[in-house]
Amino acid sequence: MPGAPAGLPPGSVIGILGGGQLGRMIAVAAARLGYRCHVYCPEKDAPAAEVASRATCAGYGDEAALAAFARAVDVVTLEFENVPAATVGRIAETTPVRPDVRALAVAQDRVAEKTFLNRIGVATTRFAPVESADDLRRAMSDIDAPAILKTARLGYDGKGQQAIRPGADPEAAWRQLGADRAILEARVDFQCEVSVVIARGRDGATAAFDTVENEHEDGVLRTSRVPARIGPAVDKAARSAARRIADALDYVGVLAVEFFVARDGALLANEIAPRVHNSGHWTADACAASQFEQAVRAACALPLADPARHSDAEMTNILGAEVEDWKKIAAEPGACLHLYGKIEARPGRKMGHVTRLAPCGSQSANVSD
Amino acid sequence: MPGAPAGLPPGSVIGILGGGQLGRMIAVAAARLGYRCHVYCPEKDAPAAEVASRATCAGYGDEAALAAFARAVDVVTLEFENVPAATVGRIAETTPVRPDVRALAVAQDRVAEKTFLNRIGVATTRFAPVESADDLRRAMSDIDAPAILKTARLGYDGKGQQAIRPGADPEAAWRQLGADRAILEARVDFQCEVSVVIARGRDGATAAFDTVENEHEDGVLRTSRVPARIGPAVDKAARSAARRIADALDYVGVLAVEFFVARDGALLANEIAPRVHNSGHWTADACAASQFEQAVRAACALPLADPARHSDAEMTNILGAEVEDWKKIAAEPGACLHLYGKIEARPGRKMGHVTRLAPCGSQSANVSD
Repeated sequence: MPGAPAGLPPGSVIGILGGGQLGRMIAVAAARLGYRCHVYCPEKDAPAAEVASRATCAGYGDEAALAAFARAVDVVTLEFENVPAATVGRIAETTPVRPDVRALAVAQDRVAEKTFLNRIGVATTRFAPVESADDLRRAMSDIDAPAILKTARLGYDGKGQQAIRPGADPEAAWRQLGADRAILEARVDFQCEVSVVIARGRDGATAAFDTVENEHEDGVLRTSRVPARIGPAVDKAARSAARRIADALDYVGVLAVEFFVARDGALLANEIAPRVHNSGHWTADACAASQFEQAVRAACALPLADPARHSDAEMTNILGAEVEDWKKIAAEPGACLHLYGKIEARPGRKMGHVTRLAPCGSQSANVSD
Repeated sequence: MPGAPAGLPPGSVIGILGGGQLGRMIAVAAARLGYRCHVYCPEKDAPAAEVASRATCAGYGDEAALAAFARAVDVVTLEFENVPAATVGRIAETTPVRPDVRALAVAQDRVAEKTFLNRIGVATTRFAPVESADDLRRAMSDIDAPAILKTARLGYDGKGQQAIRPGADPEAAWRQLGADRAILEARVDFQCEVSVVIARGRDGATAAFDTVENEHEDGVLRTSRVPARIGPAVDKAARSAARRIADALDYVGVLAVEFFVARDGALLANEIAPRVHNSGHWTADACAASQFEQAVRAACALPLADPARHSDAEMTNILGAEVEDWKKIAAEPGACLHLYGKIEARPGRKMGHVTRLAPCGSQSANVSD
């Protein structure tokens, strides 16, 4: 271990790459611990900038702005995994970036991600890299439809994806995707989707929040619930896979792993997010310290917080025009309403979320392994 | 009722008078609901300014700055009860201030406060206004020592107070206090101190958080605990007194009332704080919505949140050099650490607090009425 981590003292400045709601919630968690935040993002009116003590509005390729940002902060973390590797590399010349560029490289490329997962013994759906219509044709003969063709890079919230139905034409599908590199993934007949949000500290210690059960709609997370309706064996396997991933990347920060629980009980990792994650938002209301605080603690080389939950929780995203119901949700007893301060409610845009709490164990989860 | 309150929409700007930790926590709660904050205070490097989207650093008598501030915000609240009435009056000409100047007038003057309390049927300790050494002599013959002589205005955290022991010389005591107006209060032989933090909305609805038991040290709050070790009759009386106070002031916002529970079981109101209060900090960790969110909701004319707690809690202030222990506290499982981002740790200065949570009912409170 490279020397006992010192722990950045409160008053230090945390740089955050990305200005969305995840950065906003990281900044608030940082403030709770007495840190100041400096947000760097290309967008104006960024949700995170409003609660940060400083913000730089500049592109990820702006060398001068990046250098000034790196000098102005004590450590950098990120809320957005598609920050270019070159950007992170530039900052890392002068200032520690946690998590580092290795984790980004894996998470930014679906082929690299699944290859890495299989290499460290974490099962995934069957997949094949695709770089041409011919590749796709071959892949389709190997992986039966229904399957999903996804761009290898820059995909999130269901963007850059295409269903491959039985009998689909590889030429047409490849043209329609319009990418240089892609991945074909077998569609999993799953009983549920779960995720593990895990933190790993500078000292290599890990702390996983309770496994979450997720429901997606049109590729976007709709609801997360703890406890998940899974048995102890699946739970243990999910936690153990998340820990293996974090260890293998020598990761410092918060990481989310999404899994399918197949009908046959198999656990298949689907995606790694090298950052705080939508399926961990409930931790802000149901744990003594949230995933956002864990990210701050990891970045600042503090001891990780106890991830135990004090309540059962159900988190529901507020998408697009649903935000107009904010007053109704605000009036609901026990509902923790979070709005991100976004001005434009575009369809499907994440405008906020609500966490509904219940005493631990009050919602009996009828499960077996 | 003067028309159904409309409810300021998220995205609106809340002005906060005062830049300390209370303002900081109000700003964070406002951000959670999607509001933006504009902090106004005379101090540079104010803890609240760091998490606000805008800050004005100017004096409370700066007419031009106040006018610009009032124009820039949709509603104003305060985190500091000693804002001059003239300042609030100036702002209120153009922009609603919640709570309003009536509550400040009562809370800024101990004589007005106790007179008001007795007038609405809320018992207090015996007291007498004192404006001269002669007044003090007369008051001392009426109120037996030990007693406390306090300046009528601008006192908080034990400042501007003086113990009057049996046989004390009124001339010397009056000279030493060095104030124009004061109050002599009987010292209460109390079994415990409690407080009620109550919110009152624009629509007149009230919501009180659970009654808190407080311990002070050298006039400064040290610890707050819920549940308080009091019986249901005392609890009911405290809540009912708090509600009566809020109603009588037609109050809009969060208000704290501190009480003594005398050895004979009598409940005596000691002080009103027309703002969020240190003894309500635990609500940020043990309730779905905190006292800070309630203050935001009241100011913005939203429905108040359910004040039920999901956990028992003990909040301890971190004073002065104690902040050096931050790393030890950060490592403690289940401890919610809050630091205020203050740079200088002057002796006794409130640098942060820690809330320790426990499942409801796990700490049996052995009480009777």
